[in-house]
Amino acid sequence: MPIVTIESVGKYDGQEVTLRGWLYNLREAGKLLFPIFRDGTGTIQGVVSLKDQPAAFETLRGLTQESSVIVTGKIHADKRAPGGYELQITAIEVVQRVPDDSPYPIQLKEHGVDFLLDHRHLWIRTPRQAAILRIRAQAVRAAHEYMDSEGYILTEAPIFTPAACEGTTTLFEVQYIDDEKAYLTQSGQLYVEATAMALGKVYTFGPTFRAEKSKTRRHLTEFWMLEPEAAFAHLEDMMALGEGLVSHVVQSVLKNRVRELETIGRDTSKLANVKTPFPRITYDEAIQILQQRGNPAKWGDDFGGDEETILSSSYDRPVMVHRYPAAIKAFYMQPDPVRPDLALGFDMLAPEGYGEIIGGGERVADYDLLLKRLRENNLPEQAFSWYLDLRKYGGVPHAGFGLGLERTVAWICGTEHIREVIPFPRMIYRVYP
Amino acid sequence: MPIVTIESVGKYDGQEVTLRGWLYNLREAGKLLFPIFRDGTGTIQGVVSLKDQPAAFETLRGLTQESSVIVTGKIHADKRAPGGYELQITAIEVVQRVPDDSPYPIQLKEHGVDFLLDHRHLWIRTPRQAAILRIRAQAVRAAHEYMDSEGYILTEAPIFTPAACEGTTTLFEVQYIDDEKAYLTQSGQLYVEATAMALGKVYTFGPTFRAEKSKTRRHLTEFWMLEPEAAFAHLEDMMALGEGLVSHVVQSVLKNRVRELETIGRDTSKLANVKTPFPRITYDEAIQILQQRGNPAKWGDDFGGDEETILSSSYDRPVMVHRYPAAIKAFYMQPDPVRPDLALGFDMLAPEGYGEIIGGGERVADYDLLLKRLRENNLPEQAFSWYLDLRKYGGVPHAGFGLGLERTVAWICGTEHIREVIPFPRMIYRVYP
Repeated sequence: MPIVTIESVGKYDGQEVTLRGWLYNLREAGKLLFPIFRDGTGTIQGVVSLKDQPAAFETLRGLTQESSVIVTGKIHADKRAPGGYELQITAIEVVQRVPDDSPYPIQLKEHGVDFLLDHRHLWIRTPRQAAILRIRAQAVRAAHEYMDSEGYILTEAPIFTPAACEGTTTLFEVQYIDDEKAYLTQSGQLYVEATAMALGKVYTFGPTFRAEKSKTRRHLTEFWMLEPEAAFAHLEDMMALGEGLVSHVVQSVLKNRVRELETIGRDTSKLANVKTPFPRITYDEAIQILQQRGNPAKWGDDFGGDEETILSSSYDRPVMVHRYPAAIKAFYMQPDPVRPDLALGFDMLAPEGYGEIIGGGERVADYDLLLKRLRENNLPEQAFSWYLDLRKYGGVPHAGFGLGLERTVAWICGTEHIREVIPFPRMIYRVYP
Repeated sequence: MPIVTIESVGKYDGQEVTLRGWLYNLREAGKLLFPIFRDGTGTIQGVVSLKDQPAAFETLRGLTQESSVIVTGKIHADKRAPGGYELQITAIEVVQRVPDDSPYPIQLKEHGVDFLLDHRHLWIRTPRQAAILRIRAQAVRAAHEYMDSEGYILTEAPIFTPAACEGTTTLFEVQYIDDEKAYLTQSGQLYVEATAMALGKVYTFGPTFRAEKSKTRRHLTEFWMLEPEAAFAHLEDMMALGEGLVSHVVQSVLKNRVRELETIGRDTSKLANVKTPFPRITYDEAIQILQQRGNPAKWGDDFGGDEETILSSSYDRPVMVHRYPAAIKAFYMQPDPVRPDLALGFDMLAPEGYGEIIGGGERVADYDLLLKRLRENNLPEQAFSWYLDLRKYGGVPHAGFGLGLERTVAWICGTEHIREVIPFPRMIYRVYP
């Protein structure tokens, strides 16, 4: 008897197979039982009658939700069944019965979000959450594929760092060894600048940390970033890489995760046009657009969620806003030679109000300018001396960006909050489970 | 004029091209200069004569090591040249000249390891270190490929955790928010057990942390682990997955990183036979072998580096030792039903004295037994209540393992110390650069 997964049952139409998984739901209709089983690859409806299979019927009757089972039966194509196939059960073995006096906490009804987060280890079993995690994994795979096809080498940035990269207010401090402190990385950028000088084109893809006190639907304290960096690259190169990467990820999910996108009810027509080229507008143009739409933004302001939503609402794919005022951007951004009050940076804003998914641009290549910027920002020179070295020993124009994985996946999935798109979300008041 | 990378020059034989990179070395021979350039993808020797190209000759003469350059010249196949091609230089532009009064710190001579680690951001530019990082990236890519081909879904484990997994003595504590503490993950295993119950077959691949005070060549405080976990899987399944994964990674590096293995002088004949099946011996057999070789190990002892080296020395590929005494293994290991004093676990030991690269096995599936084990180990029940839930709500047999990326890559590269195989190693007294 072949042991098969639910996603592969189409290959076994008319044959008897064994499935291993969990009882997701059970409908009892007199002398017929209609269980739904899940095994992590999908769900399938089964049927068993008291008359034909009395032993299996008795075993299944009254079985508690999420009890683990090994089920044998015949696969039968049935257009009415969800997924297109039904299992005509001939035998069932219960591996572990969920106790009747301690039922599975997540019933097939609405629960509050705090309750669900407290039970995240179980919540991920529900079809919607499981589908989102499979979409996330596909997005990661597609991202690696794309970076690889463009000749970028993965060089992981360290997690323990001696100093802040994105400002000290959101730093997590670690008790290192013997009273020494270390800090959790906020971005791998500084480190991929070093590996880019060694290997040419590189990227890191790993967890980053910010002690964000803002309790918004877009913030996690622990999130994954993909950060490419290339020697001899400029702003335009990174905008091209960014649109290529994001369109490949979206198209790969559309192609390989059809069933999961259906499960979560995503309107995929909103993703179909996410193809290169993406629109590009300057910050100056963005300010004009905002003012025309009645937004109070004035030149020099940074954009928040409202502004990002207005700007992205005119497009059916992400829009790239470039050349922001240098004053509102990070110390390491290269000034525009034509207008030095502008930084050669860009943000990519996702449609449907999802806001910034990429931020990046060209880095300061000159030693003296970088030193000046460090001092202006009161950053500890000693901790950055290795970073200054990159400008002293063969400095070159170079550029890169950071793509926030969770924000990107939240947009692809159309979820309201990014906490649903990471297996175990960490937020200001949550490190459990 | 095409701008090309050094690794692709073979496609441009006889053509004029532009390369962008750094001056790695310069030999002056009267009216001829022989520079070696590197661009991250490889190195190439150039030649320029005072007579034919006076401007380029003058620009290049006396140029300091690691100065960044844009060089144009004709590619010329030459069997005597390292890499098989030479660049007949027609023009050179210096992007940034390394100051004569502050030369590149890493000269082409031997340096002490502390000096090199202090300059890790520059050390990675040397051909050997760059080759190792490219091999590491290939190993990671091959590992993802294999897990994907076996149907495993990537589900990242969290870094912030509420409690220890592998013992409290090596835990890093983080000042979370307000006065709350969190701990950096020592292993993603407990979390992939949860995602395996949701998705069937899963893995995590991310950084893990242990405050190892032992200053050995095998220890880092921050290292990457690949940890698969599968529902309804047993010890034998994980040994098969482990040997499949490791052999795929090794064969993929042998196939795709020939040049890099040459650069580092690895004897690849020692890797060629790393193909399935790998030998399997029981712990009982291992003790016999050790005693026959005069090692004082007796039944019940755990193995250290000496024992691992003796055990692996008889084989031309990794060996798997299974069924260790339960008393020396982690609390979550399933006992052997035939001999409950043994744990259904295994270690994979790499050849050539590289020791353990994989540890894993079957997990306790029963709620009462797990609770008993937690209590025996004085572990905080509250912090593990979600982990207990996995046995209460549809518990199933399940198994997994952890593969240490750095130990695996160190073995593949034949490096003495694992600090060379991660871009920025973190050790007990080192979080810089």
